[in-house]
Amino acid sequence: MQILKDKIISHGKVMPGSILNVGSFLNQQVDIQLYNEIGKEFHRIFSNEHVTRILTIEASGIGIACMTAQYFNVPVVFARKFRAKNVDDNLYSTHITSYTHGIDYTITVPRIYLNPDDSVLLIDDFLANGCALEGLVALVKISGAKLTGAGAVIEKGFQQGGKRLREMGIRLESLAIIESMSPEKGITFRDE
Amino acid sequence: MQILKDKIISHGKVMPGSILNVGSFLNQQVDIQLYNEIGKEFHRIFSNEHVTRILTIEASGIGIACMTAQYFNVPVVFARKFRAKNVDDNLYSTHITSYTHGIDYTITVPRIYLNPDDSVLLIDDFLANGCALEGLVALVKISGAKLTGAGAVIEKGFQQGGKRLREMGIRLESLAIIESMSPEKGITFRDE
Repeated sequence: MQILKDKIISHGKVMPGSILNVGSFLNQQVDIQLYNEIGKEFHRIFSNEHVTRILTIEASGIGIACMTAQYFNVPVVFARKFRAKNVDDNLYSTHITSYTHGIDYTITVPRIYLNPDDSVLLIDDFLANGCALEGLVALVKISGAKLTGAGAVIEKGFQQGGKRLREMGIRLESLAIIESMSPEKGITFRDE
Repeated sequence: MQILKDKIISHGKVMPGSILNVGSFLNQQVDIQLYNEIGKEFHRIFSNEHVTRILTIEASGIGIACMTAQYFNVPVVFARKFRAKNVDDNLYSTHITSYTHGIDYTITVPRIYLNPDDSVLLIDDFLANGCALEGLVALVKISGAKLTGAGAVIEKGFQQGGKRLREMGIRLESLAIIESMSPEKGITFRDE
């Protein structure tokens, strides 16, 4: 998605340690026109799929999921993420490890918001080691719903999350895949 | 806003202890058509105001803020909320106490995302004791930006947050104000 790649080049900041700061347009500050184009693009890509629900994870996935959902006209559900290990019986839950923060989380979704007759599209802002998306895949599996696919706005192609998810047979579509990046050499996208 | 009130009556659950569960359409699960109407309505109400930025707080405010922002065509910024007390110098921060959860939080926004020449509209899903919105008011004040107003989707009119914010001279607009509620007697809205 060219306008996204252009924005990453013009406004993203490559930091030491393979960190890409896109907070000024994709996370804590939202470029609403870009979000809208991202929503349209996910809809275009997955328009041949049957989607009844979009699942994301708090916090920065929520805005993108909502902007996407208005094109599909389906509800959004977001998984909550917290540190405690004990969860209520009314929730689907799984454990994930954030490599970025070195922290274990429990993620949950109320059972009533994911049904076996749902076809679920996963949406998230970032895909690096893939722990968040793999956690969402696990929640869909436990619920008995069908997993339609997964959309990530930015994938760090040099990390293993995307590869693992595709090897699981999941239709994963990333709007920009970063092949390599460094503060010195800048950013190279895949397929360029 | 009548379709919102209808939805609260049909899908909201009044629980003991003045808790209103609207998770099935306003929080963890999002009715995207309703969100869109909410965004349009906030834009209609504040259309005579100069707004350059919408400020909300994670997590459930983000989707509503994004849906609203597309009508104003301005960026969204969300405040992060965490338990630690020490914050980075690059952040505006303030402390809030959640009466609902009995927990103290620090909320922060990067300084670069709020400027003295901004006119900021606050958007949040719920207003009860008002701690979240008052925290956002404090962040705007510290930043030197102008506060245009605040929009809440649901206000618990029988709690003190709305009264306090209005007494501070803030233009607060709530799309549904609950005058009273109980599991036995149901929900009564203000001005009915």
